[in-house]
Amino acid sequence: MQIYNNKAWAKALFMMSRADTARKLAPLITGVFLYSLLVAFAELDVLKIQPDSWVKNVPTLHTLLGFAISILLVFRTNTAYDRWWEGRKLWGALVNNSRNLALKIRAMVPDTDTQLFFARAIPLYADSLQAHLQLEQTRLALDDQAHPEWDAIDTEKHIPNQIAGVMIRKVTELYKNGAITGDQLIVLNGELSSFTDICGACERIKNTPIPQSYSAFIKKFIFLYISTLPMGYVFTLGYFVAPVVAIVFYVLGSLELVAEEIEDPFGNDDNDLPMTKIASNIRKHVGEILPGQ
Amino acid sequence: MQIYNNKAWAKALFMMSRADTARKLAPLITGVFLYSLLVAFAELDVLKIQPDSWVKNVPTLHTLLGFAISILLVFRTNTAYDRWWEGRKLWGALVNNSRNLALKIRAMVPDTDTQLFFARAIPLYADSLQAHLQLEQTRLALDDQAHPEWDAIDTEKHIPNQIAGVMIRKVTELYKNGAITGDQLIVLNGELSSFTDICGACERIKNTPIPQSYSAFIKKFIFLYISTLPMGYVFTLGYFVAPVVAIVFYVLGSLELVAEEIEDPFGNDDNDLPMTKIASNIRKHVGEILPGQ
Amino acid sequence: MQIYNNKAWAKALFMMSRADTARKLAPLITGVFLYSLLVAFAELDVLKIQPDSWVKNVPTLHTLLGFAISILLVFRTNTAYDRWWEGRKLWGALVNNSRNLALKIRAMVPDTDTQLFFARAIPLYADSLQAHLQLEQTRLALDDQAHPEWDAIDTEKHIPNQIAGVMIRKVTELYKNGAITGDQLIVLNGELSSFTDICGACERIKNTPIPQSYSAFIKKFIFLYISTLPMGYVFTLGYFVAPVVAIVFYVLGSLELVAEEIEDPFGNDDNDLPMTKIASNIRKHVGEILPGQ
Amino acid sequence: MQIYNNKAWAKALFMMSRADTARKLAPLITGVFLYSLLVAFAELDVLKIQPDSWVKNVPTLHTLLGFAISILLVFRTNTAYDRWWEGRKLWGALVNNSRNLALKIRAMVPDTDTQLFFARAIPLYADSLQAHLQLEQTRLALDDQAHPEWDAIDTEKHIPNQIAGVMIRKVTELYKNGAITGDQLIVLNGELSSFTDICGACERIKNTPIPQSYSAFIKKFIFLYISTLPMGYVFTLGYFVAPVVAIVFYVLGSLELVAEEIEDPFGNDDNDLPMTKIASNIRKHVGEILPGQ
Amino acid sequence: MQIYNNKAWAKALFMMSRADTARKLAPLITGVFLYSLLVAFAELDVLKIQPDSWVKNVPTLHTLLGFAISILLVFRTNTAYDRWWEGRKLWGALVNNSRNLALKIRAMVPDTDTQLFFARAIPLYADSLQAHLQLEQTRLALDDQAHPEWDAIDTEKHIPNQIAGVMIRKVTELYKNGAITGDQLIVLNGELSSFTDICGACERIKNTPIPQSYSAFIKKFIFLYISTLPMGYVFTLGYFVAPVVAIVFYVLGSLELVAEEIEDPFGNDDNDLPMTKIASNIRKHVGEILPGQ
Repeated sequence: MQIYNNKAWAKALFMMSRADTARKLAPLITGVFLYSLLVAFAELDVLKIQPDSWVKNVPTLHTLLGFAISILLVFRTNTAYDRWWEGRKLWGALVNNSRNLALKIRAMVPDTDTQLFFARAIPLYADSLQAHLQLEQTRLALDDQAHPEWDAIDTEKHIPNQIAGVMIRKVTELYKNGAITGDQLIVLNGELSSFTDICGACERIKNTPIPQSYSAFIKKFIFLYISTLPMGYVFTLGYFVAPVVAIVFYVLGSLELVAEEIEDPFGNDDNDLPMTKIASNIRKHVGEILPGQ
Repeated sequence: MQIYNNKAWAKALFMMSRADTARKLAPLITGVFLYSLLVAFAELDVLKIQPDSWVKNVPTLHTLLGFAISILLVFRTNTAYDRWWEGRKLWGALVNNSRNLALKIRAMVPDTDTQLFFARAIPLYADSLQAHLQLEQTRLALDDQAHPEWDAIDTEKHIPNQIAGVMIRKVTELYKNGAITGDQLIVLNGELSSFTDICGACERIKNTPIPQSYSAFIKKFIFLYISTLPMGYVFTLGYFVAPVVAIVFYVLGSLELVAEEIEDPFGNDDNDLPMTKIASNIRKHVGEILPGQ
Repeated sequence: MQIYNNKAWAKALFMMSRADTARKLAPLITGVFLYSLLVAFAELDVLKIQPDSWVKNVPTLHTLLGFAISILLVFRTNTAYDRWWEGRKLWGALVNNSRNLALKIRAMVPDTDTQLFFARAIPLYADSLQAHLQLEQTRLALDDQAHPEWDAIDTEKHIPNQIAGVMIRKVTELYKNGAITGDQLIVLNGELSSFTDICGACERIKNTPIPQSYSAFIKKFIFLYISTLPMGYVFTLGYFVAPVVAIVFYVLGSLELVAEEIEDPFGNDDNDLPMTKIASNIRKHVGEILPGQ
Repeated sequence: MQIYNNKAWAKALFMMSRADTARKLAPLITGVFLYSLLVAFAELDVLKIQPDSWVKNVPTLHTLLGFAISILLVFRTNTAYDRWWEGRKLWGALVNNSRNLALKIRAMVPDTDTQLFFARAIPLYADSLQAHLQLEQTRLALDDQAHPEWDAIDTEKHIPNQIAGVMIRKVTELYKNGAITGDQLIVLNGELSSFTDICGACERIKNTPIPQSYSAFIKKFIFLYISTLPMGYVFTLGYFVAPVVAIVFYVLGSLELVAEEIEDPFGNDDNDLPMTKIASNIRKHVGEILPGQ
Repeated sequence: MQIYNNKAWAKALFMMSRADTARKLAPLITGVFLYSLLVAFAELDVLKIQPDSWVKNVPTLHTLLGFAISILLVFRTNTAYDRWWEGRKLWGALVNNSRNLALKIRAMVPDTDTQLFFARAIPLYADSLQAHLQLEQTRLALDDQAHPEWDAIDTEKHIPNQIAGVMIRKVTELYKNGAITGDQLIVLNGELSSFTDICGACERIKNTPIPQSYSAFIKKFIFLYISTLPMGYVFTLGYFVAPVVAIVFYVLGSLELVAEEIEDPFGNDDNDLPMTKIASNIRKHVGEILPGQ
């Protein structure tokens, strides 16, 4: 994600960032422009269709469906935005959860070794969740001063689960040793369960796009709408039909493109969530709370 | 559910997957096409209705109601999507819940027999919930190394309830034996209650479609709208009225069809939730956490 | 509620169930039809208003407001649907809650008498809540093998509250007798509080319709819109204005009618929630879990 | 709030309740009617503007913006309805909370004095919250059989906070005396915290209207739209422009008026929440549960 | 934020508050007005384009896209409003949380020193969160009667986290000293965790605007729409095209401007949340509850 000033109109209008839809759609927009020119040439100069032809009234179709396609695409974009915002909320919850667990461990267990353990484990969870969501096979950032708990981590298996498991086992061990009381165990339970809840919810967004028949229908509808658009409007717009159809396509295509990009917020695109930044903030803030990292 | 690449436009446009609405609606679209041809033939060549007839202005009706039908169908589709997404969230919660329970049992109870018990019971819950939602009479996947707890399961009764009951009784027994403390009982309570909450919520989505009078009204509205559409437009579109009406029907019918398919996400259709896959993932991840399965 | 197959188009189109809006609106639709005929007759054949009259352009009003009335009614229907669905969720939560409490009691308290008590009390709560929401004065289904706790129930007072009270007192008594521990008391607390939360939320939906001035405005708007509709369209539609206005009224009236019916989901209408069925399912499933009923 | 039958169409159409928007807007509607007449008179009979003047095409503006103003106002009304419904939910939660606390106290503490204390304190909270939200300086309804706890209440300070404080201190005292155990303290905690949460959420709705620039923009937009409306339509509607513009204003103004009235649900208007009734119901039901009031 | 009377129409219409969009957009509206005049002059008087030119039908574009831009902007504004309202809810939750914690501490711990500690720490959290969100480097308001806990606060680090940490450590210390029991620790846990949850959620709204490609697309779409608007309408509106286009721009621009202002509710603009006022209310109410501040 790139931070931007949402009030910078001039920049928004004339700069083409890498994430700009106009830039990504440029080849298709050009194609639509040329196709419309061709249709205009064919109808006006080759076939010389007269204005009293029935073809002239094809725009009836576009009037009847123009509203449906607009509202469908705006709804589609908003549904995608809801998924993106839910992804952001989940990572926000990860931040809160990491801080709260660190604050509580700091207060409850004075033992330096335990604090050091969590100073490592908590940020590691965020890192491994990011790696897991981006499907990269990353090495665990384990330094040489190893804890025996880490040895059990198997990179072939689900890594965030294992790190959550190590933390839960650590807390259970602290409870069994009497380092924390049963009441404190209950107080820590919310944060410990929450890691896995967040991971599962991110996986859900990642692996479940909107239903295929819905998605395919929207693309087919745009295609039908745009490809028939120049046929009738040639009679009122002449060769101006080419820029007009291109602009209509730019708008409809951009709405679909924005929706596609933001419905999966866990990637490396410009619009995707800044997971690396959030994870490093978790590391920084947990480091401030739990010394000795 | 079939996983697809939401950015593959060409494929979305020209491939007709089994779930494609164009394919499912093909017979009806053909029917609407032929009906419109017939109307055009009757009005233009048989009755020879003159363009100054009142019939010519019937499209007034379609202008007045065109917006209403579009927004109604888009809302309908979004309501259905919300149900589908809620179903997905519930199965996501089942994943989280299964993992958290397994992680906690692993940490709290070192006893191999107990771990083996939960390594079986947790994935079994997901399997039985799927079977329950798909109304299949499935055999419980019990291997020969039986636990006495399983013998009480009666396949005539509500199976997920019984498996949840077995797990709750097991945990209560562990508590009474002193294998877990009261504080740990409280910590496990959220996960144990959650299984039944998820099951009940899935049943709710499954057995409560949108109100019948709403659903019937939408179908009647589409029928009225489409069947009167060619009558007036014949005067401006001639025989072109047939493809135009067919396309309008394709759009309206697809919106309704997508809504019908996704409002019950627990079935075997292409758009339905991949419950088999999720259940097998639960089995896999619980197996990673609790050894000895 | 009547269960129906949401994919049965033919049936939806041509059958008129008791809940069908076309059937309920039939007298009003006929009235609108006759009124429009009358207007057409008056303007065309009595007053013989010329097409260059200002009256001809009254439809300007309907173009300006046509969108507003459509979106208003679709929003209205969706708000009503949200209330209906919230009602369904509450009864779904009652199912979950009843099951969870039964499962926990079964696991925690082996005493047959206690189990018998809850095997009766839990389904009774659902029954009494239904009776309470439908404002029927129903007798409590108490068999002869009476428990002294039931004697305190006063049918003049709020019955669900009293049944919840009996259950809470029973659990407190079990706690004081040492039959359940304090940790188990905490584990049962969620389910016990939830009964009253569900009851209060159902009462809220029942006794709070949408604000009166909003509801009255929508009806006045439909009336104004429909009653002025034939005046101008007579000049373009002639006597065809009668079916056209009748169809427009059918659509707008149906949206309002569906909204009115589903915004209070706790009644005996065809679209209302199947509370009797849900309550009997609760009885059945609790009976499966807690023997001896 | 006035209870009404949402199916009574005839009554809704022809009765003008005190909350009716047509009644409240009557002076403004008359003003708009006269203004439009004046515009028509000026353009048609004074200036005698010819139909080929550019002025004739001003309605282009209203076509371009007609949709925007409709959807904006419908959204505005729905946002206001959400606030109203949230207010209703909060008071519903207060009902649930009051009942649950009373039921639990009844079960846990047999001591008559304590029960009497809560039989007074719980309904008092609802009363004081209503008074607090309506900004009335009401006397506390304290009878002569005073408890020393009440003496500490200072009517200059935040009263609901103080009543919540008295209840929390009472429960803590019961805990310290051993009248309730620690597990029971935990069980009561949810209800005790919830009072203050409800109060704060009501205050939020009360003291935070929608952003001023949004609200001012909507009013300016309606003004601009309506005041320019007759200018162009005079050429197609003649003096009929006056009723047409008046009706359009009635619709747009009603949507805004309904939104304004329901976005603050805590007042004494007809559409406001029946807080007095809810509070007296709380008193009634708590009185049924906790005897001796 | 400025408190206003939402029913003061006259004031809303004619006063231009500092937050008014008409005022902020004035230079741009003037620019659009002049640009449209220039286009009209060029087309009518310089190029003398004939009405039978294709250019005349460019408004086809605006008809096709007019609906899309309206609904897109209304949705955009509502999404921004949701963020603003979520921000308000979070600060409302901070109020509730601060009050509940103060009430509980007051009841549980009679020790004056502890009460004094929380009488300072709780309002300080609100102050520091405001400062943190507004990115001001503010001094901590510590009076001379210092507690050693405060010395550890490092203004270079995340300050709200540190204050939350001090409170959590204080409560843990009270628990270890036996001043509060384990059950009371559990009862206080919700409030203590909630501070950090609120802070994290505010940070999320602050640092995550809507996706850049979405935001940039909306601005480009407005620009394209407005800049091409006068070209075709010159033929029907003549020089009237300038005020018409200016009004259309005022409406579309205002919707975008309102959205931009309210999507980040934590600033010093007129529409931003009154954090200073809320924080001082927290100080006031906590001061009423916990004496000795």
